[in-house]
Amino acid sequence: MSKDKNKFVKEITPMEEDFAQWYTDVIKKTDLIDYSSVKGFYVMKPYGYALWENIQQYLDKKFKETGHQNLYFPLLIPESLLNKEKEHVEGFAPEVAWVTKGGQNELSEPLCIRPTSETVICSMYSKWLKSYRELPYLYNQWANVLRWEKETRPFLRHREFLWQEGHTLHETKEEAMEETLKMLEIYKELATEFLALGIIAGKKSEKEKFAGADSTYTIEAMMKDGKALQSGTSHFLGQHFSKAFEIDYLDRNGKLAHPYSTSWGVSIRLIGALIMAHGDNRGLVLPPRIAPIQTVIVPVMMKKEGVVEKATEIYTELNKKGIRVKLDDSTHNSPGWKFNQYEMLGVPVRIEIGPRDIKEGVVSIFRRDTLDKKVVKIEDLSTEVTKLLDEIQTNMLDSSNKMLKDRTYEPKTLDEMYEGIDAVPGFYKIDWCGDLECEEKIKQDKAITIRCIEKENENSICLVCNNKSKYSVYTGKAY
Amino acid sequence: MSKDKNKFVKEITPMEEDFAQWYTDVIKKTDLIDYSSVKGFYVMKPYGYALWENIQQYLDKKFKETGHQNLYFPLLIPESLLNKEKEHVEGFAPEVAWVTKGGQNELSEPLCIRPTSETVICSMYSKWLKSYRELPYLYNQWANVLRWEKETRPFLRHREFLWQEGHTLHETKEEAMEETLKMLEIYKELATEFLALGIIAGKKSEKEKFAGADSTYTIEAMMKDGKALQSGTSHFLGQHFSKAFEIDYLDRNGKLAHPYSTSWGVSIRLIGALIMAHGDNRGLVLPPRIAPIQTVIVPVMMKKEGVVEKATEIYTELNKKGIRVKLDDSTHNSPGWKFNQYEMLGVPVRIEIGPRDIKEGVVSIFRRDTLDKKVVKIEDLSTEVTKLLDEIQTNMLDSSNKMLKDRTYEPKTLDEMYEGIDAVPGFYKIDWCGDLECEEKIKQDKAITIRCIEKENENSICLVCNNKSKYSVYTGKAY
Repeated sequence: MSKDKNKFVKEITPMEEDFAQWYTDVIKKTDLIDYSSVKGFYVMKPYGYALWENIQQYLDKKFKETGHQNLYFPLLIPESLLNKEKEHVEGFAPEVAWVTKGGQNELSEPLCIRPTSETVICSMYSKWLKSYRELPYLYNQWANVLRWEKETRPFLRHREFLWQEGHTLHETKEEAMEETLKMLEIYKELATEFLALGIIAGKKSEKEKFAGADSTYTIEAMMKDGKALQSGTSHFLGQHFSKAFEIDYLDRNGKLAHPYSTSWGVSIRLIGALIMAHGDNRGLVLPPRIAPIQTVIVPVMMKKEGVVEKATEIYTELNKKGIRVKLDDSTHNSPGWKFNQYEMLGVPVRIEIGPRDIKEGVVSIFRRDTLDKKVVKIEDLSTEVTKLLDEIQTNMLDSSNKMLKDRTYEPKTLDEMYEGIDAVPGFYKIDWCGDLECEEKIKQDKAITIRCIEKENENSICLVCNNKSKYSVYTGKAY
Repeated sequence: MSKDKNKFVKEITPMEEDFAQWYTDVIKKTDLIDYSSVKGFYVMKPYGYALWENIQQYLDKKFKETGHQNLYFPLLIPESLLNKEKEHVEGFAPEVAWVTKGGQNELSEPLCIRPTSETVICSMYSKWLKSYRELPYLYNQWANVLRWEKETRPFLRHREFLWQEGHTLHETKEEAMEETLKMLEIYKELATEFLALGIIAGKKSEKEKFAGADSTYTIEAMMKDGKALQSGTSHFLGQHFSKAFEIDYLDRNGKLAHPYSTSWGVSIRLIGALIMAHGDNRGLVLPPRIAPIQTVIVPVMMKKEGVVEKATEIYTELNKKGIRVKLDDSTHNSPGWKFNQYEMLGVPVRIEIGPRDIKEGVVSIFRRDTLDKKVVKIEDLSTEVTKLLDEIQTNMLDSSNKMLKDRTYEPKTLDEMYEGIDAVPGFYKIDWCGDLECEEKIKQDKAITIRCIEKENENSICLVCNNKSKYSVYTGKAY
């Protein structure tokens, strides 16, 4: 057994060489996650979990500002409940885990671990709702869910993952649709303003929608390998679930009516998006707003008089300004090693301070996104760092949007798309007739899926079958 | 089906008549929780969940201030891992739920749903820990756990419940013991400062300690029926788990060593404590610091000009001051109904404002703890409310401590304890020889258990067997 202090400075496979390996290397080496002994079950380590905590904090505030309340529903769902909504059970039953024994006894009815909670929530809503006065129901839960996937990958496809799921009820179809789009908007803001992700947003095709939904809206982020990552979905469920679960209430006219429902969720998948949309061959690049450490201070020649003291002073000042700052004054690693480590961890700003700097009243600051370095007067430092963090946040969103724009292609022919998708992976915007057949053809031929509908478009022809088009859609390969 | 708006004003069974029924009534009528269709699985409704969110926020801050980080471990634990620590498996195996099927396939090894996470966490720690430099490990997780209890009760004994579990590793026995006691101290502060609970704290007897622990420390709160509720525990695990799970590291002398570990947790049980320690026959009485609504404003004769406007003004002012305030200007319930409802919900302060008050520049304020009412000038209101909230918090702790003191008895004989415990339930402080036999006798005779050891005491005789005493202990009946 030997000290493993060098685990952070081992090579990361360059992303141009093997993107999948790059992703795995980054995750392992930055200690975001670890594999447990059960396939598809991961341990979220402190640095990875801190990213999720920051997402939670951001979203929970938005949910509450828009009138939502949190609650918590049971983990286990009786088989009979899961079976109530036909399309839903067909979508989820093949991938659930079953509890068959509690304590020493076999259970009389198997209980599945929630893959999502529509069924158990609707059964309770059915019991609760009496009058239109109680509507809307605007509820959310933060929870773990299980899906027994065959292929698993850190953050992208866990058998157990953490997420939030909102479940709302409304008097009218219009209100439910408004809620569906409002939550999509909140996810768009999360993606762009907080995570600095270039995204497209829109409706899913019938084939790709949520099992049991009338329609599903999605945000899709572009990864650096040109693939799409579905990053958040908001479902308009119509009256499917309220009818299947017999949720009804006395409406304004004293008549029994079924409410309209929505559900919406994001998960730790977003962390996968963060890694693959921003990372580089040095490791993570984190947008300042979500970064657990926004600024790291690395003192150089720490044994020289006054260095640690000055570094501590700076730490205190930045900390007071509300910046999440870390001072690494550990003695068993060199400054060079620390530079590498915090670059790998994606810390947005690094401050280097040594004896000569102190004499001159300056420090060097390094920004992770552009890898630029500049010298700043100590007296201006906290203002400069605050400004720089904002600048990095903006620049990262701009870069991500630029990549999205540069890699969104408009092929003229099906061949052009088929050849292009391997040579220059990205989003391919095409016109489509709306038929399942054409959608399935591109999937079978090239594993291309419709990521979302951009808009209705009846003035063109379908790229696949040459019949009259119905929509303009974004297609691509996806995680 | 009919409007259920009167659900809050149905009678609550008086606690003197039937304490258990009073508890159930309060929980149902204040809408803290609901029963799901699976025994022992409850839905935490918004008002109940908000109490848990406030506890989480308070504790999470304390944990982080004391250097702890959050992470997240898998829900499912392989049978072989659960079996590694002998006492631990004996304690927990009889009450775990087993997953035997994932997707369409039977699993080759059954997986249990975590009843607590020592086993899965230790298996990971064993993989991670290499050097003394990495110690201490100061980790915590917020999670759901399952225990397949035979008897279940809202908040007190769920088959699924929410909690936090801290799991730490240390170089020395002393450091681990220091951590154990530090976390006990944080739980004591939570109970007294935040939840206003009169508590006793101390070490558990060998019989009552956690399965696999060297020693367990507990906080025990007194409920209004005189029973104890174990409200938080902190375990010194010695090297039991680090040896069973082969966790070792290179120590300062380059030798392999096993670390010392601790674990500690509190759960939604605390909400049960809150209800039963403070509630009365009108319903909940919530300490201001945890109350989801700290102050409610009820306008009277709302149709009169200026009433709603003035109430809104006051709302805005209190809200700005950081008070969690609600203005109930709904028109379909009378002021009297609202008074009852918010008293039942335990809202610490109610402000009543009507046309005459406005003319006189005053409002009435009602405090839930003492049921007193007074008239206050509107210009002084926000100062008065802030002061009153502090006063209520202090008064509730004082009252709870007084009850604890008044109902802690020191019986001279075993008979006196046996007769007393039914007539005047409470804590019975006795001297004890330390033998299991005496501990089991009082349990068999009268369901009395040792709640915790107050101190060592060799200068007396055991109340049960009359042999030389070893400890002074608190005994009582417990939930």
